[in-house]
Amino acid sequence: MRGVVLHAPGDIRVEERAEPSIVEPTDAVLRVVATCVCGSDLWPYRGVEEVRDAPMGHEYVGVVEDIGPEVRTVGVGDFVVGSFWASDNTCEICRAGYQSHCVNRVLMGSIGTQAPLARIPLADGTLVATPKMPDEELIPSLLAASDVLGTGWFGAVAAEAGPGRTVAVVGDGAVGLLAVLAARRLGAERVVAMSRHADRQALAREFGATDIVEERGDEGVARVKELTDGLGAHSVVEAVGTQQSMTQAIRSTRPGGHVGFVGVGHGVSLPGEELFFSGVHLHGGPAPVRRFLPELVRLIWDREIDPGRVFDLTLPLDRAAEGYRAMDERRAIKTLLTV
Amino acid sequence: MRGVVLHAPGDIRVEERAEPSIVEPTDAVLRVVATCVCGSDLWPYRGVEEVRDAPMGHEYVGVVEDIGPEVRTVGVGDFVVGSFWASDNTCEICRAGYQSHCVNRVLMGSIGTQAPLARIPLADGTLVATPKMPDEELIPSLLAASDVLGTGWFGAVAAEAGPGRTVAVVGDGAVGLLAVLAARRLGAERVVAMSRHADRQALAREFGATDIVEERGDEGVARVKELTDGLGAHSVVEAVGTQQSMTQAIRSTRPGGHVGFVGVGHGVSLPGEELFFSGVHLHGGPAPVRRFLPELVRLIWDREIDPGRVFDLTLPLDRAAEGYRAMDERRAIKTLLTV
Repeated sequence: MRGVVLHAPGDIRVEERAEPSIVEPTDAVLRVVATCVCGSDLWPYRGVEEVRDAPMGHEYVGVVEDIGPEVRTVGVGDFVVGSFWASDNTCEICRAGYQSHCVNRVLMGSIGTQAPLARIPLADGTLVATPKMPDEELIPSLLAASDVLGTGWFGAVAAEAGPGRTVAVVGDGAVGLLAVLAARRLGAERVVAMSRHADRQALAREFGATDIVEERGDEGVARVKELTDGLGAHSVVEAVGTQQSMTQAIRSTRPGGHVGFVGVGHGVSLPGEELFFSGVHLHGGPAPVRRFLPELVRLIWDREIDPGRVFDLTLPLDRAAEGYRAMDERRAIKTLLTV
Repeated sequence: MRGVVLHAPGDIRVEERAEPSIVEPTDAVLRVVATCVCGSDLWPYRGVEEVRDAPMGHEYVGVVEDIGPEVRTVGVGDFVVGSFWASDNTCEICRAGYQSHCVNRVLMGSIGTQAPLARIPLADGTLVATPKMPDEELIPSLLAASDVLGTGWFGAVAAEAGPGRTVAVVGDGAVGLLAVLAARRLGAERVVAMSRHADRQALAREFGATDIVEERGDEGVARVKELTDGLGAHSVVEAVGTQQSMTQAIRSTRPGGHVGFVGVGHGVSLPGEELFFSGVHLHGGPAPVRRFLPELVRLIWDREIDPGRVFDLTLPLDRAAEGYRAMDERRAIKTLLTV
């Protein structure tokens, strides 16, 4: 089969890879219907993370092609969504809702789902089947649930977005935009999207943003405080992962408020004394998407949310390199790859 | 009046200071019955914080001597306990339970309660009166509520100590020991005190510790994991404030678990990537003691808890310098000063 491989920074190729098969009795093999390029794929693409000759991709929806003898909850022919961490969903950490830290977890990025077929470890704990075969138009939204929606949702949950709260979102990538959607769905009264791009601002408003702040850094913090009687937001979602964005998120939050951080931290260092005196709650990390998947699939199935709107470029898998380039140059928010 | 002044690192003197009086209509003047030396007083005493010619002390219990015309909830002759932050207890931040970040807060340390009299700003929002004049034996415990008990309690609450949880406490100073007491009172199933001093271990056990871990750093982390099926504690209270103790606290916590940090961070820097992948919740800062004071005073009044046990040295105010020295040299856990 032909799958996406990153050879070196900037060097994405679609080339021959071995077809996967059942290895463990708890595995499934998935025929991938759609996959996509993640903001986190850009870190190795840009050389910020050292990666060579690696299969790429960790987001996926598709049809179960084969299952191991111990798989019980999904069957051949089911249409399924899974998360970027395979998890058993039965260990103590999973049961507490942290499937991305499952004691038996497997990183799907190490398998590479930008390909026609993918082995899914721990299929029972990882995959969620849709009620039946979805309409074509639902595919982008179901694919979004696999990572960016689940991650934005977790950011909003970690920031304790809810009724009566003002939520600010730092970052206008797909995750940030979907954190806006999540905050609103979770009942937030006011959602402040921080963005200086007209197209992303428009999508943020569609997803429920009530205010847009274009300023960044200290000026962005000052604007959020102006909007909140000088106190800061109750909840702030950090969806970038840089020193500036983390600092901006913490300083935009009122004492006792909550920062949910879902941008993968790169070279970020938090000064202990500032954190101490800020009085905020900090929670984040790789999102336990599996915790939210059943609910997210239902919301999409019932057409209550339309997170697939973040895909503004669709390409066949063979043209993956173009999709990476468009995201790297910020010409696309997120690229969907059809298989 | 004669009060305690820090002239320079290591140079504590008891000398003539101006008597306080009502300045704002919301002030009270307190006749201090007992005060004490805080672990945080040792930072300037050791020269880690730059402080010169400053009045010292922020913990206090005593009898109201005078009140301003707008004070309503405490009266002359009342025996009261207050926190180290004066707070109005009515602003939005206070109402959310973060009185230590009150928009009108005043730091009691800038006033200096190691003296016979102290001005208490925002008396209605700051002071809690006991039902009547307390027995002599209750004074140390009521004084402990003013800071170390309230701070240890907040650490345990921030770490979400509760039924079914294993709580580890990093730090065996007064705050750490009282975090053990708090964790137990909050219903924790297992409380691991991290200490290598026999006398402090004994007090930790009295306060409800079920396990003692003597190891520190990575070995301490490994021991906590051994005690928790390799997962780490649900809740960890950090009550020191150094890089090592923060790192130890974060690494001792399971993914999805909670770190409550109440040691004042000095030179601490948290690596963003490690924090991200740890998946822990982090919350702390200067404790909103006032949130807990009514309940803590009740527990002490009813003799359900005996936090005053942390005072293992009692001296008259005039001998404050000895009290600082004993704590600095770790010969005393905490020094009570009678006035």
